[in-house]
Amino acid sequence: MRRWNGWGDDAVEFALNDEALAFLAQRVGAGKPAADAGYEQACAQIQESRLPPHRLIDTSPEVRLRNALGQSLPDWLRLRYGVIGAAPDGVAYPESAQDVRDLLDYAQQFGVALIPQGGGTSVAGHLTAPAGLPSLTVNMTRMRQLLYLDTESQLATFGAGVLGPDLEAQLRARGYTLGHFPQSFEYSTLGGWVAARSSGQQSLRYGRIEQMFRGGSLETPSGTLHLPTFPASAAGPDLREIVLGSEGRLGILTEATVRVTPVPAYEAFHAVFFPDWRSAETAVRQIVQAGLSLSMLRLSNPLETTTMLALAGHKKLIGLLEGYLSLRGCKEGKCMLMIGVSGRKSLARTALREALALTLPQGGVHVGRYMGDKWKQNRFRNVYLRNAAWSHGYAIDTVETAVDWPRVEIMMRSVEAAANAALGAHGEQVHTYTHLSHLYAQGASVYTTFVYRLAGDYESDLARWKSLKKAVSMAIVENGGTISHQHGVGSDHAPYLAAEKGQLGISSLRALFEHVDPQGIMNPGKLLP
Amino acid sequence: MRRWNGWGDDAVEFALNDEALAFLAQRVGAGKPAADAGYEQACAQIQESRLPPHRLIDTSPEVRLRNALGQSLPDWLRLRYGVIGAAPDGVAYPESAQDVRDLLDYAQQFGVALIPQGGGTSVAGHLTAPAGLPSLTVNMTRMRQLLYLDTESQLATFGAGVLGPDLEAQLRARGYTLGHFPQSFEYSTLGGWVAARSSGQQSLRYGRIEQMFRGGSLETPSGTLHLPTFPASAAGPDLREIVLGSEGRLGILTEATVRVTPVPAYEAFHAVFFPDWRSAETAVRQIVQAGLSLSMLRLSNPLETTTMLALAGHKKLIGLLEGYLSLRGCKEGKCMLMIGVSGRKSLARTALREALALTLPQGGVHVGRYMGDKWKQNRFRNVYLRNAAWSHGYAIDTVETAVDWPRVEIMMRSVEAAANAALGAHGEQVHTYTHLSHLYAQGASVYTTFVYRLAGDYESDLARWKSLKKAVSMAIVENGGTISHQHGVGSDHAPYLAAEKGQLGISSLRALFEHVDPQGIMNPGKLLP
Repeated sequence: MRRWNGWGDDAVEFALNDEALAFLAQRVGAGKPAADAGYEQACAQIQESRLPPHRLIDTSPEVRLRNALGQSLPDWLRLRYGVIGAAPDGVAYPESAQDVRDLLDYAQQFGVALIPQGGGTSVAGHLTAPAGLPSLTVNMTRMRQLLYLDTESQLATFGAGVLGPDLEAQLRARGYTLGHFPQSFEYSTLGGWVAARSSGQQSLRYGRIEQMFRGGSLETPSGTLHLPTFPASAAGPDLREIVLGSEGRLGILTEATVRVTPVPAYEAFHAVFFPDWRSAETAVRQIVQAGLSLSMLRLSNPLETTTMLALAGHKKLIGLLEGYLSLRGCKEGKCMLMIGVSGRKSLARTALREALALTLPQGGVHVGRYMGDKWKQNRFRNVYLRNAAWSHGYAIDTVETAVDWPRVEIMMRSVEAAANAALGAHGEQVHTYTHLSHLYAQGASVYTTFVYRLAGDYESDLARWKSLKKAVSMAIVENGGTISHQHGVGSDHAPYLAAEKGQLGISSLRALFEHVDPQGIMNPGKLLP
Repeated sequence: MRRWNGWGDDAVEFALNDEALAFLAQRVGAGKPAADAGYEQACAQIQESRLPPHRLIDTSPEVRLRNALGQSLPDWLRLRYGVIGAAPDGVAYPESAQDVRDLLDYAQQFGVALIPQGGGTSVAGHLTAPAGLPSLTVNMTRMRQLLYLDTESQLATFGAGVLGPDLEAQLRARGYTLGHFPQSFEYSTLGGWVAARSSGQQSLRYGRIEQMFRGGSLETPSGTLHLPTFPASAAGPDLREIVLGSEGRLGILTEATVRVTPVPAYEAFHAVFFPDWRSAETAVRQIVQAGLSLSMLRLSNPLETTTMLALAGHKKLIGLLEGYLSLRGCKEGKCMLMIGVSGRKSLARTALREALALTLPQGGVHVGRYMGDKWKQNRFRNVYLRNAAWSHGYAIDTVETAVDWPRVEIMMRSVEAAANAALGAHGEQVHTYTHLSHLYAQGASVYTTFVYRLAGDYESDLARWKSLKKAVSMAIVENGGTISHQHGVGSDHAPYLAAEKGQLGISSLRALFEHVDPQGIMNPGKLLP
């Protein structure tokens, strides 16, 4: 069963072994496990529902608790410490666009805020119930069918609440794939990907969700917005690009049409090590600008490389690997690059060969598929580490941005330094490490992870998180990055949005939202500051 | 000098020889040359300006006439027959963003409509002065500098009024290219490409302008909208995608940052013939869905193939080619495909080889580079044929859309049939032919040309054009196409926009425009119905 206060299925454990714990203790001090609140205790905090009854709405405390929050660290703190706060007054499970329309009519009639929810994996506070106003979470996961597959145009139409694995299973049964694999894949939905502009691990081949999303249907307080599919169009502004990233402020996506491709005949992930960051960054920039047909490039900085090797288990094997790398010039400060290739075997191998050739002048050492296979095996499992870390008294949080090439390294160093300073002010150390998760000819995403000790009580840990979040967000803004490359805005990033949209951009979006949703019932408080 | 009542430079003639004229006479009857109005006669029709004086504004009749209209057929009819109608009350030539701001302030103060203009190549009525309101055309072509080139991120920032050849020349001097080559390339501007969502002939390699446009600066009545460059972002709706296709309704783009790439080492265009449409369409769909690194695919239908061969000159050579093709199974009904490749020679040749292999099962006959070289040589010259045709009493017009694969052939046949019926109602024949100008995994653009006889007077020819335009636009809408793949909306396509945007989409765009431009001075009457 899915955990109510952590990530994923409670039958899945991804434990930290003694070496990993020793590594963490050495980096930030020994963790002190905090006492988790119980499920009944949390349910007991759910207030009586203020909603008038409706055939689609469940107002039981259990269902409302399980749909109250996402996966951000402040969401976790509320669940783990049992400080639930505002929860939705009910949860609806629509099964059709008509059900969604009925809920919109109901919400407008009774002045109820609607919070659209896919898999509930937001890490930016998209799902929090607004204080004051009665609210209803609209859980879309029953709308999950493959409705139409046009193999000639390679377009598939799904109910927008389809979860990643269900989507891929329905397509693969017909020989196709979408190829969208965010780390949240197991529990996130197509509609959520669109609403928050998600990006998957193999976006280099398959594109971001913006490129995949070709059309669909959005139910709004002012009616239905139907987005037809065209291969391309010059007919005015692209309304899909307004729906993408709208985070529930415009309406609820009921159907989405996405481009698909035949399942690739061949797929492989290879690891290459570099002696230092500068050479590694130069190599990946040259590779991505060469426009080769790769499916993934993912570059870890020295501390992430060290961390991944330390947590990998197989101590003896890793020792041998490090010995070999050291002989080849990759010692302290080495960086690991993961290269993915997919497609026809001959073309994939050609692309890999071209990419490897570009690593050589930068001292790249190709170590084959072992590390890549390990990575692929754990691609959706690493996120379970948050559960294990918490149980040993550690918080794990992440932040991500994207920035043009000349500022990539400065951004990485600034975000890490900001985190160190912020936790330092609380007398704590933070273990920070970074990877470039998505590479583009124009720049890269910069994805930083923070591991630090829990204080053990809600207020102190919320204060630590707030200091950290503010410091790293300011570092992003000051270095010209976007406040999110792949997680979206939600509540947590909204204060920083004006830095990139400008006041006119923000007021324009507000005017648009007010036109479509004059009562302001759609996910109020999210996205816009 | 640039023609005031036709396409391009008046030193360039692209004549129709006797064989071409015989071909046209056989298709639609002998043309009767119409008498063109004189330049002085046209200038004399320009009314006295209603504008208060301003340091940047020229109110001379000559300048206003030369900036009054674009290149649509109704624009031509007004110029050729000397029925000028409404013209702007003045033309401003700003040289800086501050100049543009001054003009916006002036326009707001005096209630003047602003018509942003790049190269004046619109074929959809983007530039027409509104009746009633005093209006000012803002000609952006003095803002044409390469302002900044970031070779690390492959980003170039230009003044938005830069013309295609000036843009490429400034980049090529530094080893880079944008790679955007619409047929209007010689006279269209970067800002115009963005405002009308242009697409170039090699978009398969370089992308549409949407993919190239990474950021910029828009001056609006409500202030400046600065669009920063990010490699990618999940921070809410993408404001660039609202500026793209805004057709002057939001403001005036002063700077645009575009992605660029090193000039390719190798470029070639090859021709392949197919025995019939169905086999050709199947082949191009399979090629584009294979994701090969090609720079262009352009497929002519049988009548376009015949027309291109008839107009190619070199009668003997073409006769030999047709004899050879006939032996290889491509006779009556054959279709010509142009394949472009660019990049590193080895990779380009590999991609070409893969593409050619996919043509074989469909009966494709590769005839090498001769036709491709001819096409490349004339890529910006074919549009001069409109001048020559007019002088022999023929009108040439085009219409284009894009549609998913299952409807491509139906669309082509419907548009051609609609044109035949519309001109038939006037007792005239029309020579129509079609190519797929841009190919996508999901579908294709369908680009149809019409050649028919001029009646010889303004009212009759406007009536013929209106019948034709309405009939083909309805055919597009009824067959699920977008009203424009690459020419934009302007005035001529505005009545059909609601069919794809929906009433809620249209009203949302209107709300957005009203927020940014509360007085409604920005290019009124364009884009929205």
